Amino acid sequence: MNAAAPNPIGPIAVIGGTGPLGMGLALRWARAGETVILGSRDAGRAQQAAAAIQRAVGGEVNVSGMENAAACAAADILMLTVPFENQASLLKHLKPSITEGSILIDATVPLAASVGGRASRPLGIWQGSAAQQAAELVPKEVSVVAAFHNVSADLLGGDAALDCDVIVCSDDPDAGQLTRDLAAKIPGVRAIDGGKLENARIVEQITALLIGLNIRHKGHAGIRITGLPPQAYR
Amino acid sequence: MNAAAPNPIGPIAVIGGTGPLGMGLALRWARAGETVILGSRDAGRAQQAAAAIQRAVGGEVNVSGMENAAACAAADILMLTVPFENQASLLKHLKPSITEGSILIDATVPLAASVGGRASRPLGIWQGSAAQQAAELVPKEVSVVAAFHNVSADLLGGDAALDCDVIVCSDDPDAGQLTRDLAAKIPGVRAIDGGKLENARIVEQITALLIGLNIRHKGHAGIRITGLPPQAYR
Repeated sequence: MNAAAPNPIGPIAVIGGTGPLGMGLALRWARAGETVILGSRDAGRAQQAAAAIQRAVGGEVNVSGMENAAACAAADILMLTVPFENQASLLKHLKPSITEGSILIDATVPLAASVGGRASRPLGIWQGSAAQQAAELVPKEVSVVAAFHNVSADLLGGDAALDCDVIVCSDDPDAGQLTRDLAAKIPGVRAIDGGKLENARIVEQITALLIGLNIRHKGHAGIRITGLPPQAYR
Repeated sequence: MNAAAPNPIGPIAVIGGTGPLGMGLALRWARAGETVILGSRDAGRAQQAAAAIQRAVGGEVNVSGMENAAACAAADILMLTVPFENQASLLKHLKPSITEGSILIDATVPLAASVGGRASRPLGIWQGSAAQQAAELVPKEVSVVAAFHNVSADLLGGDAALDCDVIVCSDDPDAGQLTRDLAAKIPGVRAIDGGKLENARIVEQITALLIGLNIRHKGHAGIRITGLPPQAYR
């Protein structure tokens, strides 16, 4: 356990956690002293990823790796970081393993790249957003939160503080607050209550815009919200 | 003429210019030494608004007021700042008055408020965005640019420097550059090339998200893009 860890919130299961966003979030939360369980289709791959995070953080850290469903069963906070084309099938696979009262934090962005199009264009989703699709696929008592769409995975995977805000949308105020507390554990990140889950429609699409900016301007774009009073953050 | 005015770009006709966004842009551009023609359905109202801007800027400023079609005919740069429900009918009315080679900068945001819904929810537009609808309604040789959606009209109408970025989308690179130059005349604003006009879909929707944040957190929200190299701006 990291000596500096204030008020751990986890354990957090990062489902589909061996991709860049999952690894980056796991790294930052492990550094903050959180217990993180990396999930992957392949348990061995999850364990290798966990070992890589342990090496990157150094010292004693609580990071382990498991098959996705086992990771899911081992935590009440589930962080979903998979490409949109895998979201629905994975949630159907996970459904029996999700424990009652769990919170699912969804960072899925429905990009046209999922169906052979461009990563700078969003797909239209019948439910309105990938997060609302997730809400339809999990057991009813699970609170779904949309967050972490607009954070650069590349920057998360590094050592420097970030320079961006995380807009958190949920119909469950407590789950939203917990997620904002988790976001604020990442140096340089401010968390903002973005209202109801339906607002994920816009937050998800912003990622497509940022990907376009990254392609055009060769960067790792994020967003900051300006013009709000200090108490709006977190 | 403002003594400090570097390289005037206008005249700029601000169509539907007596609302908060139009007045705010006109004020800031007049302060920067640009020639601004405020347009309104009612010429008298446009002249009153122009006089108010003259008083606010002080000194000698080039701001006048005309009926919308006359304003349109008097300038090659048209800044459209009307509620979405008036956009299509106004553009049909203006079409004969738009001079060849004009640039239309569209800041229209299609909000559900236009049809009795919430200002924090965007409407779905057949063409993809209000800007793309505008492009369908103007003469073919007119370049349409989408910009200024995410700037707080309230803050524009004040004296303080802003703290936000303007994302500019257009299929005409020269018109986009001109618009970014105009945006950069507003103190505190950075202009970013947001790519093709189709990307206005996302930029317009961001405004609905910001309106929701303003309602929830009592502010005047804007956005900054982070993580891009300095040359990405303007």
